[in-house]
Amino acid sequence: MALIVMKFGGSSVADSEKIKHVAGKIIARKKGGNKIVVVVSAPGDMTDDLITMSEKITAEPNPREMDMLLSTGEQVSISLLAMAIQSMGHSAVALTGPQAGILTDSEHLKARVEKIVPKKIFSFLEKNNIVIVAGFQGLNPNDDIATLGRGGSDLTAVALAAQMQANICEIYTDVEGVFTTDPRVVKDAKKIETISYEEMLEMAGSGAQVMQARSIEVAKKYGIEIHVRSTFSEKEGTFIVSEDKIGRKQMEALMVSAVTFDKNQVKFSLIDLPDIPGMAAKIFGSLAKLGINVDMIIQSAALDKKNDISFTVSKADLKKTQMKIDQLAKELKAHSVVCDEHVAKVSVVGIGMKSHAGVASKMFEILAKNGINIEMISTSEIKVSCVIDEVDLNKAVSELHKGFKLNKK
Amino acid sequence: MALIVMKFGGSSVADSEKIKHVAGKIIARKKGGNKIVVVVSAPGDMTDDLITMSEKITAEPNPREMDMLLSTGEQVSISLLAMAIQSMGHSAVALTGPQAGILTDSEHLKARVEKIVPKKIFSFLEKNNIVIVAGFQGLNPNDDIATLGRGGSDLTAVALAAQMQANICEIYTDVEGVFTTDPRVVKDAKKIETISYEEMLEMAGSGAQVMQARSIEVAKKYGIEIHVRSTFSEKEGTFIVSEDKIGRKQMEALMVSAVTFDKNQVKFSLIDLPDIPGMAAKIFGSLAKLGINVDMIIQSAALDKKNDISFTVSKADLKKTQMKIDQLAKELKAHSVVCDEHVAKVSVVGIGMKSHAGVASKMFEILAKNGINIEMISTSEIKVSCVIDEVDLNKAVSELHKGFKLNKK
Repeated sequence: MALIVMKFGGSSVADSEKIKHVAGKIIARKKGGNKIVVVVSAPGDMTDDLITMSEKITAEPNPREMDMLLSTGEQVSISLLAMAIQSMGHSAVALTGPQAGILTDSEHLKARVEKIVPKKIFSFLEKNNIVIVAGFQGLNPNDDIATLGRGGSDLTAVALAAQMQANICEIYTDVEGVFTTDPRVVKDAKKIETISYEEMLEMAGSGAQVMQARSIEVAKKYGIEIHVRSTFSEKEGTFIVSEDKIGRKQMEALMVSAVTFDKNQVKFSLIDLPDIPGMAAKIFGSLAKLGINVDMIIQSAALDKKNDISFTVSKADLKKTQMKIDQLAKELKAHSVVCDEHVAKVSVVGIGMKSHAGVASKMFEILAKNGINIEMISTSEIKVSCVIDEVDLNKAVSELHKGFKLNKK
Repeated sequence: MALIVMKFGGSSVADSEKIKHVAGKIIARKKGGNKIVVVVSAPGDMTDDLITMSEKITAEPNPREMDMLLSTGEQVSISLLAMAIQSMGHSAVALTGPQAGILTDSEHLKARVEKIVPKKIFSFLEKNNIVIVAGFQGLNPNDDIATLGRGGSDLTAVALAAQMQANICEIYTDVEGVFTTDPRVVKDAKKIETISYEEMLEMAGSGAQVMQARSIEVAKKYGIEIHVRSTFSEKEGTFIVSEDKIGRKQMEALMVSAVTFDKNQVKFSLIDLPDIPGMAAKIFGSLAKLGINVDMIIQSAALDKKNDISFTVSKADLKKTQMKIDQLAKELKAHSVVCDEHVAKVSVVGIGMKSHAGVASKMFEILAKNGINIEMISTSEIKVSCVIDEVDLNKAVSELHKGFKLNKK
């Protein structure tokens, strides 16, 4: 008898019809002779609605009370989903994160899961229940509700699967799996059958919004196989597995598995900084203190004792970054600050590039041939990213998709 | 330093402006040098909205999951209210019913409070916090969330006040206190300054919707003084106290303190039942099994071995009662069943009637003088109720109010 963790996102439980549909899917899986643990997010836009409610009260809500507020979203969806399953004649029980034994550290709004004590879940499973667990939340050392941050329901599902030694963790979503690039941009984007944790991590970090990066890390650490698939179809989606399992399935790894992009980028440049040690540490230390996540960084070679430093942040951090950088520019005697909101990042990702030289140069060549200027470059072992003008983005994505033959899979 | 329990109903926290207003009132009370525990209901219509959501899933939701769903309402209001107080520079902490140590029996949807362990509340009060507790909910012996039924937030407030030996329990609402009758029906209805628990209980039982009866019982049992007052005014409202305290404030008790009414009644009559023992037990036992609350009962004297039995139930139970009574009528060989939806109950309430004879006869006289026919009568030590045709209700209320000189207080 297999143990399956099924996770449904907010769009899958947005209204009563969808909740009933999901209940049907879960029951079908149960009838297949499996033990079922379900993890659910808050319905539809409820989390955003709750945030709006808090914003009307105060711009800086206390994190403890914010978590208490936000956690109601999942409590609503687990209750309704359990009722739906029960009304179809099957035993089900809804458990909040704290009831399910999900224990976190004491950080609010982005708590880390420290430990899972699934005693209650196992006991309900033994009594033949489908167990529905609220995603995104747990109990902290003060016995307060803590939330895990955006995408936290993925983490709940994967961490539960790891702790309970589930056979598979199925992530149900409104797309059919992981694609070679965004099908809304490139029509002949192909669904990827199997992808490695490492590639999926790079994809999540470079703009693909299929799964939260933290949960992929946990899956990788504990070797939990993930199946990303559609709530609204019976087709198989994409399996996220360890690299060696891909090797077995597919004799020769592709050079590039996917093209990803991120429009949510702003580029800042500090022009003509004095070339003295500690500049970069001062700048990026100050930004880190403000909780600003810096993505790419480039420092130009020092000529005539002057440096240029450019970096990208997400658009949500634009204002905070602008204020801090203007202040730092004065302090550090930079000549000026340039902010460019009209940039985008395009990346190619693939474990194949470890053994194939020339992926980066082929990428640059494709972009150049199409008259697309590269503003910044960054590389990892299995990814190459370029920052370009956002007007060129769609062209870049589709030319790279074609150039690396992803439409021919 | 006094300990005050302040309870705010759903209409007092229905939107962000109202929540901020309530926060201001609480802070003012705190600044007066008091320790403050606040109990809040779910905002506005949220409980009804949650019920509607469940109805779209199933007509018969599992009570455990229903409680989990319903309890999110108060969790939203305590979080937002705590945030509002914090944003005004005061320490506050929100506690769910389980966190506040409110322990119930294992009945869902109408759990009884078994015990309160306010350790956490006391510890937060000592650290100078305003403590905000979710009304209407507690933790049951299975570690599940249980709700206390409609009006349960009043019960939370009074029970906390009793357990914590608070100096007073203030019930904030959208009316200015308890009135001699409904001001929407009789314009010169007067606010009552002080009323006894007993009178308030009879009023709650006879249609006045100021406070839930169970919570008045608890207040009476533990001698907790209650102050019913308006959220939107600074004026004093009505104090609910023990009878001996009223004696001290007011030399001669009034014969009648208030006229109440209830339009939410349906009258059933079983005509020509055979006069054999056990009929009434059979009928009312069957209704009780279905959870139908029967209010007034009249059995006519037995002539020619036949009986008529009439009783009233609330309109919400009309269908259930109709089905059961039709079935019973056949079984028990009654001649017929008559159902009258167009009745109403009018009552006069007052501890004064204990020592003043003739309140009932004066009531009948006033009704008769105004051509109002009485269909059923029931009396208690401090209340007389009559069921009349609902078209006569407003007239009956205003004539009784005038006749007992309640407009002259």
